[in-house]
Amino acid sequence: MNTNIENKRHTLAHLTAQAVRQLYPDAKNAIGPTVENGWYQDFDLGEVKLSDTDLQKIEDQIKTNLKNWTEFTKNEVTADEALKEFSWNEYKTELINDFTKETKTLTFYTCGGFLDLCKGGHCEHPNKDIPTDSFKLEKVAGAYWKGDANNKMLTRIYGIAFDTKEELEKFIWQQEEAKKRDHRILGRQLKLFTISDLVGPGLPLFQKNGNILRRELTNFLWELHKEHNYEWVWTPHMTKEALYDVSGHSGQYLEDMFSVFGGTSKEKFWMKPMNCPFHMELFKDNQFSYRDMPVRYFEPATVYRDEKSGQLGGLTRVRAITQDDGHVICKIDQIEQEFDIILDVLKNFYSTVGLLEGYKVRLSTRDDDKSKWLGEDANWKIAEDALVNICKKHDLPYFEGPGEAAFYGPKLDFMFKDAIGRDHQLATIQCDFVQPERFGLSFVNEKGEKEQPVVIHRAISGSLERFLGVAIEHFAGAFPVWMSPVQVAIIPVKAEYHNEFATEVYKKLRDANIRVELDDRNESLGKRIRASKEMKTPYVIIIGDKEKESGNLTVETRTEKIEGISVEEFINKVVKEIKERTLN
Amino acid sequence: MNTNIENKRHTLAHLTAQAVRQLYPDAKNAIGPTVENGWYQDFDLGEVKLSDTDLQKIEDQIKTNLKNWTEFTKNEVTADEALKEFSWNEYKTELINDFTKETKTLTFYTCGGFLDLCKGGHCEHPNKDIPTDSFKLEKVAGAYWKGDANNKMLTRIYGIAFDTKEELEKFIWQQEEAKKRDHRILGRQLKLFTISDLVGPGLPLFQKNGNILRRELTNFLWELHKEHNYEWVWTPHMTKEALYDVSGHSGQYLEDMFSVFGGTSKEKFWMKPMNCPFHMELFKDNQFSYRDMPVRYFEPATVYRDEKSGQLGGLTRVRAITQDDGHVICKIDQIEQEFDIILDVLKNFYSTVGLLEGYKVRLSTRDDDKSKWLGEDANWKIAEDALVNICKKHDLPYFEGPGEAAFYGPKLDFMFKDAIGRDHQLATIQCDFVQPERFGLSFVNEKGEKEQPVVIHRAISGSLERFLGVAIEHFAGAFPVWMSPVQVAIIPVKAEYHNEFATEVYKKLRDANIRVELDDRNESLGKRIRASKEMKTPYVIIIGDKEKESGNLTVETRTEKIEGISVEEFINKVVKEIKERTLN
Repeated sequence: MNTNIENKRHTLAHLTAQAVRQLYPDAKNAIGPTVENGWYQDFDLGEVKLSDTDLQKIEDQIKTNLKNWTEFTKNEVTADEALKEFSWNEYKTELINDFTKETKTLTFYTCGGFLDLCKGGHCEHPNKDIPTDSFKLEKVAGAYWKGDANNKMLTRIYGIAFDTKEELEKFIWQQEEAKKRDHRILGRQLKLFTISDLVGPGLPLFQKNGNILRRELTNFLWELHKEHNYEWVWTPHMTKEALYDVSGHSGQYLEDMFSVFGGTSKEKFWMKPMNCPFHMELFKDNQFSYRDMPVRYFEPATVYRDEKSGQLGGLTRVRAITQDDGHVICKIDQIEQEFDIILDVLKNFYSTVGLLEGYKVRLSTRDDDKSKWLGEDANWKIAEDALVNICKKHDLPYFEGPGEAAFYGPKLDFMFKDAIGRDHQLATIQCDFVQPERFGLSFVNEKGEKEQPVVIHRAISGSLERFLGVAIEHFAGAFPVWMSPVQVAIIPVKAEYHNEFATEVYKKLRDANIRVELDDRNESLGKRIRASKEMKTPYVIIIGDKEKESGNLTVETRTEKIEGISVEEFINKVVKEIKERTLN
Repeated sequence: MNTNIENKRHTLAHLTAQAVRQLYPDAKNAIGPTVENGWYQDFDLGEVKLSDTDLQKIEDQIKTNLKNWTEFTKNEVTADEALKEFSWNEYKTELINDFTKETKTLTFYTCGGFLDLCKGGHCEHPNKDIPTDSFKLEKVAGAYWKGDANNKMLTRIYGIAFDTKEELEKFIWQQEEAKKRDHRILGRQLKLFTISDLVGPGLPLFQKNGNILRRELTNFLWELHKEHNYEWVWTPHMTKEALYDVSGHSGQYLEDMFSVFGGTSKEKFWMKPMNCPFHMELFKDNQFSYRDMPVRYFEPATVYRDEKSGQLGGLTRVRAITQDDGHVICKIDQIEQEFDIILDVLKNFYSTVGLLEGYKVRLSTRDDDKSKWLGEDANWKIAEDALVNICKKHDLPYFEGPGEAAFYGPKLDFMFKDAIGRDHQLATIQCDFVQPERFGLSFVNEKGEKEQPVVIHRAISGSLERFLGVAIEHFAGAFPVWMSPVQVAIIPVKAEYHNEFATEVYKKLRDANIRVELDDRNESLGKRIRASKEMKTPYVIIIGDKEKESGNLTVETRTEKIEGISVEEFINKVVKEIKERTLN
């Protein structure tokens, strides 16, 4: 029987306390809760500092002890009994007094001869339920008692645990891979973006290389949308307050919004946290008939949302969010056709970047707290039914997420699995009857009457920043050729002998619109090749005597060496890969 | 002798007062100052409303009277004398009392038998100095006495006057042309942009067609800059306050700045009114050597500046300003080379849009109020000398503008003449020693020492919004083919007979990346052709029996009809015009 993983992690906290108490009899164990992927257990170890070797010893002791952990026994105790048992441990004493004040029932749990103050939630049979190779002590850190810097600093031992050895190993591998792929570190190494102290966290500045990624993605997304007659529009980053009063955002979304104040005009504005109300206004400034429907707007625009600065990091949590936003304003009977198009674009985009495999879809609906949502029940039903139908029709791998809807309607949120198996929520498609009503949108239908359209909100990459954060780690910085900031590096072995031919090749590549760089610095060949490899340049051409004489190229890719390829053949190969957006 | 035009306009105000008093003896003349291009004169006319015919009569009367206006005579008078003379006129009475309180000397001026209270500034010999065909009464409007809505509404007669008949005629033609070309009206007609009441003035929303113009201009500007190894970067629209404290903008530029406040974080920010400090931070995040210099940043970014809403209109005065901004960070000995490049880009851009002829350059320097400028005198001198040298070297048509410099350095501002002869200040190139110092920028020079670079700020189009406002009026909406939102319209005479061939042609054009629209609506041929002409579409293809049978096209351009051109020939022609950005 596979008991709940939380119970296993909790049991392991008890085991950690026992092992440490055995190895360090003066140790006083404090709290030991579960956390994401594992648990921790705090100790007052006096002057003792734990080394990695100590950690291994503790882990070994846990494994030895685990064999005898057959079953927990539970005892309800009085405060006096509890205080007596833990008279040697001021932390437990403080907890017992706290719980007594809160009139909580006190319970002791004992297993394998080790007793602890605990409210329960363990494996039934630890020695059977927890394989000894499914967990690991991870690290030691300092932590203040009760998280208060005025209190004593305790020693915190972290562990990780999963149901099986395979899951544990996968997680460890994932952690190590994630460290190597950290987009904040790669962002610096590849000169993609800059976090400036003067500008602030969550507001990254994109260097040339990072902006090439932004522009390549934007161009690709536009290409996909243009084909389906989307209209690329542009709207400003701020607005009078009235716009978001009409849309309802200022009621439902207030905390996330930045307010703006004019120095001369003394007028109040909002920065835009969403583009949709602007697109409603664009629609409204026309007189459309049913023949013009649907109207499809596309705008890769930067919106601004307030996040506490503590939560901001790299590109994945930012305040400047460049959505590849779009809104389809259509007749109700066009919803399905438009979803077909959007799903087509979405699948095309994610298969091109190699993220489509194993994706999941959350059908985000309302929950029972009706105050969080605007709009009539009847329209919510139409929209939710439409989304379910679309999921079924396209056989999408979906699950329901009650309470995850946007304030104006239900949505499909798309989760994609990266190269090391982590899930990332990126794309979204949303159905909205509220905004068209609040903005009074209409078109003239076949009968010559005014009819209210429905709005479909959609973002494919989600936001360029977040998507890039994911993509940098997914590719570990080794982007497909079409995205690579530098696609080809040319390195002449010796400038005085080989620069002429190198420059000739350089110009030909440049003329073919390939992003090429010539590295003729007065540095060793090895150093220059390493520099190109560090920048994860997909093709490095080395030009020496052989190449100069034959006129053919030697090219190092990220994985192999191509020899004796003609310049034209190489150009054709690269141009084709760029055009077709070939994956590595 | 050509007396000052202001004096002529002032004299004409007197003449207007005389003529009206002659024709309407009960009229009471109030004030009559000069304004841009002319003058006005206010009257209390009782119940009388002036028609266009009346205005013509008054103008004729002025011309008759002018013959006898040989010379003004001046008399200093006491308050009592003045009050006695104007006892019939409560407006003059009020003015006399006002001036007496301010202890001003009161003077009467008389000419052609007409006396008025006046402080002087007339032509010496009106009948000789003012040609009767050099002025014109323009219009009648209402105006409150002393501009106060609590006072009586008076009748204001406006006139326009120039030194010569030719200048007057040119001005009238310019006014009429300007009305026809008004970019706010054309903006609606061509569906370029929308001014939304909810978003507010100065924050235009660009419809698909307007955004095509924005993107075409941006692409063209990037093409020009890319060739010179500029790096396209991206920076956010807001920043912590610290950035503009370091740059000095928050001290020198405060009134124009929008402040931002986070709803959750409670942090304060600025919206960016300028990109330069962001580019300084991009530079600073690298370690450059002299071999890397100059570093050239390009960023077509929207900045936000507060203007009072009364001053905002269409695209020419906006709060959202998309500059085609760029900063060259270079060694001092590279200033000249970089100006050469920028001038090359600038001339290329403006000759392509047909605005280069008759351009002027203002060399904007400091004035004596030193508090308005930052930086050391020595550096200002280097920078001002460099700009003068560049003006001379390139033989630029320049004049000096003391007091017009940026707070961090002198600049060249470029004024361009549009198709109807109006001047528009658009491009700017600026020299800056202050920002590199305030941001502590450095590169490693040939001696291995840290050296401070200089920054050149440049904007070629100035801002996309302002440039588009000018360009729409310059072209009267009839853009060159490469800019035109729709480049070709295809109109089948009868859908049932001609749609097949029309669609075939449509697809071929679309595949050739031509922006083409097929208008097969169930409307008359004439109506559909007119619709295309109203949208100023450069090429309209009409497909009827003849075209279907021959496979050749009939094309209406804006000025002529091309018959019997093959589809391939037509595509080649249009593609060539787009590629070469041919002017009409």
